[in-house]
Amino acid sequence: MPELRKDPITGGWVIISTDRAKRPNDFVRQSVMPQGVKLCPFCAGNEDRTPRELLTYRTHGFTGSTNWSLRVVPNKFPALRVEGDLDRTGEGLYDRMNGIGAHEVIIETSSHMMGLADLEDRQVADLFWAFRERVVDLKRDRRLRYVLLFKNHGEVAGASIEHTHSQLIALPVVPKRVQEELDGARKYFDFKERCVYCDIVRQDIASGSRVVVETDDFLSIAPFAPRFPFETWIVPRRHASHYESIDEKLVANLAWIVRATLRKIDKVLERPAYNMIIHTAPVQEGSMEHYHWHIEIMPKLTRVAGFEWGTGFYVNPTPPEESAKFLRDAGIG
Amino acid sequence: MPELRKDPITGGWVIISTDRAKRPNDFVRQSVMPQGVKLCPFCAGNEDRTPRELLTYRTHGFTGSTNWSLRVVPNKFPALRVEGDLDRTGEGLYDRMNGIGAHEVIIETSSHMMGLADLEDRQVADLFWAFRERVVDLKRDRRLRYVLLFKNHGEVAGASIEHTHSQLIALPVVPKRVQEELDGARKYFDFKERCVYCDIVRQDIASGSRVVVETDDFLSIAPFAPRFPFETWIVPRRHASHYESIDEKLVANLAWIVRATLRKIDKVLERPAYNMIIHTAPVQEGSMEHYHWHIEIMPKLTRVAGFEWGTGFYVNPTPPEESAKFLRDAGIG
Repeated sequence: MPELRKDPITGGWVIISTDRAKRPNDFVRQSVMPQGVKLCPFCAGNEDRTPRELLTYRTHGFTGSTNWSLRVVPNKFPALRVEGDLDRTGEGLYDRMNGIGAHEVIIETSSHMMGLADLEDRQVADLFWAFRERVVDLKRDRRLRYVLLFKNHGEVAGASIEHTHSQLIALPVVPKRVQEELDGARKYFDFKERCVYCDIVRQDIASGSRVVVETDDFLSIAPFAPRFPFETWIVPRRHASHYESIDEKLVANLAWIVRATLRKIDKVLERPAYNMIIHTAPVQEGSMEHYHWHIEIMPKLTRVAGFEWGTGFYVNPTPPEESAKFLRDAGIG
Repeated sequence: MPELRKDPITGGWVIISTDRAKRPNDFVRQSVMPQGVKLCPFCAGNEDRTPRELLTYRTHGFTGSTNWSLRVVPNKFPALRVEGDLDRTGEGLYDRMNGIGAHEVIIETSSHMMGLADLEDRQVADLFWAFRERVVDLKRDRRLRYVLLFKNHGEVAGASIEHTHSQLIALPVVPKRVQEELDGARKYFDFKERCVYCDIVRQDIASGSRVVVETDDFLSIAPFAPRFPFETWIVPRRHASHYESIDEKLVANLAWIVRATLRKIDKVLERPAYNMIIHTAPVQEGSMEHYHWHIEIMPKLTRVAGFEWGTGFYVNPTPPEESAKFLRDAGIG
């Protein structure tokens, strides 16, 4: 059973994933990423290599086990499990909780494609709609306080399977970085009576210098204080705290701007590895005036990770006004 | 001039290091680490390849420019600079500060050695004493609020030069992760009237299960909620908030336990890359009852970095009781 443990000083929670406990020799330095269609557990025809699906999308009129366009399956090596009760226990000054939650994989296509940017807009829209559907389903379990969608693209960004996929983790606690955003946005709202993200959208459209792509519904920008070079955020222009409030029209427009942004990143940085994350409000809470869901894309270009991990202090060699200009100017045909 | 920018939501500061501004093509995927003595800027005989030294240690009786045992030099590509005034300015809702600070390199030996664990105890003690001397000097500049000592060992941990060295950065702000520790430790103290680190030392000695090495003055432990597999902390047994209060006897004992811990890590994990960081109290503040300086060592074994960066939520496959047992049992002759 995985276990959640709380850092007694900073209060941050950590998943100790005992189900896949690693001994020293298990930390392979060389990769073992499966290559090609035959061995790939995510390709059509290999459905028996994954756990039973939670959700399937098919092109209209198609049937049969291999005729799907998107599948959501439980992770075969989950960091958290749905079974059991949410018990909190202490051990002297330490606190722990059993690892209740869910860990799912969203297979974005039945063909052996490598990247989200290579799919059609319709397929990218399917990913974002599937995420909405899974959040709506998972939030009925009142033990789950947060659902996180993320994508690791490329091996150095943490992807262990080449076939393009995203993951979601449902957690019994709100992750630290999201809580910091919630707290910071609340402070700003208390002082200004405006949402900080709405103010960012207004100011960045007016200045223009950090804008990558602008549409009627979304803004793709380099944030003012990016932690990583070419970090890019996609923010809805109309205020909404919860991602799952999105509708079909917005999902189609979101898919377009995400794919346009990723294609620009691929062009300028020669198809880098990246991480993409949706930050949204905690699922059990009502609509919030002060928080605003958004997407963060972080290309994996630099290696100076340990110092940043240990300090929370980031050194970024690329001003966001420069990265935005490179991306804005990149033609994507 | 480098610039400090504040994230308008979370309040975290980021250094935008414009002096070494990077264009897309500068993000080399392949390493260009200089190999061998002849090209190494840190080897004896190549002193003219670094800026002029700030501090030099020599073996008693030795003189001459190449007869040194430790040198501290300014970083050739500093993230921050000492010159100028500390100006804070706004731009609409955004805040910035000019990049006042210091960025120095501590070259731990004149021979082309690769790791701290390969040096003698006396040389490791020199590193920790040199850090104390630099902090005492830098804190006289009242603009500098924090001095951070860190070591990136190995290329995947961010080291760009092979010859063993550490770095220090002096900052006009307290780094976020340290501020979180200060705030968390303060809350614990307000509630319990005891230092949380002192309580950790007491409880972990009593339980024994997370102890790696124990001496009269220091404890080397796997923390209860480690973010990374084989993360190891070295904590002084007697309360002290500021690292620079250390004396010569303690420095000698610290050098011994750091080297013993690193040699155990080298043995169990086959000489991994790692990051080592000293967390200490802000230099301009007086002695604190609630905070306790310590060292954090994070071997670089896993790649799942982006998800963690974006969430502050860590998944660790190795329970600390297991990593501590492996390290405790490792014989180091």
